[in-house]
Amino acid sequence: MSAFALSVILVSPKTPGNIGSAARAMKNMGANDLRIVAPRCNVLDSEAIAFSVHAEELVRQAPIFATLEEATADLDFLMGTTARQRDDLPEPIFPSEVKPMLAAFQKVGVVFGREESGLTTDELARCQSVLRIPTSDYASLNLAQAVLLCCYELLQAERSSGAVPVPVTEATDLAPREQMERFYEQLQDFILKVNYTDQPRLKHKMRQMRKVFDQARMTEDQIRMLRGLWAQALWAAKSKKFIIED
Amino acid sequence: MSAFALSVILVSPKTPGNIGSAARAMKNMGANDLRIVAPRCNVLDSEAIAFSVHAEELVRQAPIFATLEEATADLDFLMGTTARQRDDLPEPIFPSEVKPMLAAFQKVGVVFGREESGLTTDELARCQSVLRIPTSDYASLNLAQAVLLCCYELLQAERSSGAVPVPVTEATDLAPREQMERFYEQLQDFILKVNYTDQPRLKHKMRQMRKVFDQARMTEDQIRMLRGLWAQALWAAKSKKFIIED
Repeated sequence: MSAFALSVILVSPKTPGNIGSAARAMKNMGANDLRIVAPRCNVLDSEAIAFSVHAEELVRQAPIFATLEEATADLDFLMGTTARQRDDLPEPIFPSEVKPMLAAFQKVGVVFGREESGLTTDELARCQSVLRIPTSDYASLNLAQAVLLCCYELLQAERSSGAVPVPVTEATDLAPREQMERFYEQLQDFILKVNYTDQPRLKHKMRQMRKVFDQARMTEDQIRMLRGLWAQALWAAKSKKFIIED
Repeated sequence: MSAFALSVILVSPKTPGNIGSAARAMKNMGANDLRIVAPRCNVLDSEAIAFSVHAEELVRQAPIFATLEEATADLDFLMGTTARQRDDLPEPIFPSEVKPMLAAFQKVGVVFGREESGLTTDELARCQSVLRIPTSDYASLNLAQAVLLCCYELLQAERSSGAVPVPVTEATDLAPREQMERFYEQLQDFILKVNYTDQPRLKHKMRQMRKVFDQARMTEDQIRMLRGLWAQALWAAKSKKFIIED
């Protein structure tokens, strides 16, 4: 997926649960190297293990360092994270913007600061890029959420599912879902009354119908047109005694 | 930022804390319409309020519906979420892949299922797109993390910070950080000894130096070359008595 290996460095985390949650987030996104600098709690606390869920080995194997310098000595590109602009430092960029630079490196690290105060300006100055996560005006991400979003953006965001997305067509006055549901109710009724399918196969058939008509992205006029067609077809069938019940 | 409004619909959530955390995640990412279908807990439980942090009003204002159909009647594009492929349904695509389609809509909803079992196949069949979040082989996201990543990708991921990222140059054998730090130590020593700056201004000056040389992305040979230059300059200065101390 990625040419580089991503290490996550937590500087002086305070709450064991945050360490565990960060490890869980990392593992979900495919980052497997957790390093901890000067923790302010017991990293192997039962809460850390519980919150890590199946990423327990990331927490248990995490090396502990006294300083950020020691923790990052072997890395060749370092990104610091911050929630705000700092004096003397370059303006923070978004994780998606640093991504193109990472292809040139093998060992990349992303550093997260203290729960209350983040990284110091000195710590950020050791990093070659300063990252900020894009948010709305309201920004209050916890440590594990920040780790999750960074690892997602750096390791997963550009992946392709391999599935073919439904093609897009422009439309201005699409019918609301409520009308589509009324449309499907009438279609289902129609299908049963004309004996197109039977009750056991009905659900499966309706799913196939939904694929067709959801993809069609109809306007209210188009829905009205088709509902009119079915009502008419039903009347015609009925008048010729094609109806089993009713 | 986005032309469409994004609603988040939680189907039968069980744990109040998850509702609160989901609301907090939404607000961070700029989604402000939370809707809840047939909750299995008290939505206004103190835990829900506590976990929402500053997104309390999203929880307090969230309308409660009996069915998914009622909850989504006014929306014009609906996305369901799943962690796995389901029979009878299209292969799930990633949130980044559905994003280009959303420009054509005004009111878009993303639906999240029960903590233990997700959405039913019937519920997913009501959605025009089925989404899966890209993860590593290990996938164990909780409800609020899934909400966070979907809202991030649909509302924030394509934003630009406006900052100019450091330009990228290709390099194969970049010096590890440890050598860069030794380099900066020697540079700092050099700067002080030649009286280039004084102790109060040193930190600021070193940050400016770091911007230059980090951006230069040097190899070990290049570092060696510059360290040699400074050692030589210091020797020359010393022999001419330019040194204050040492």
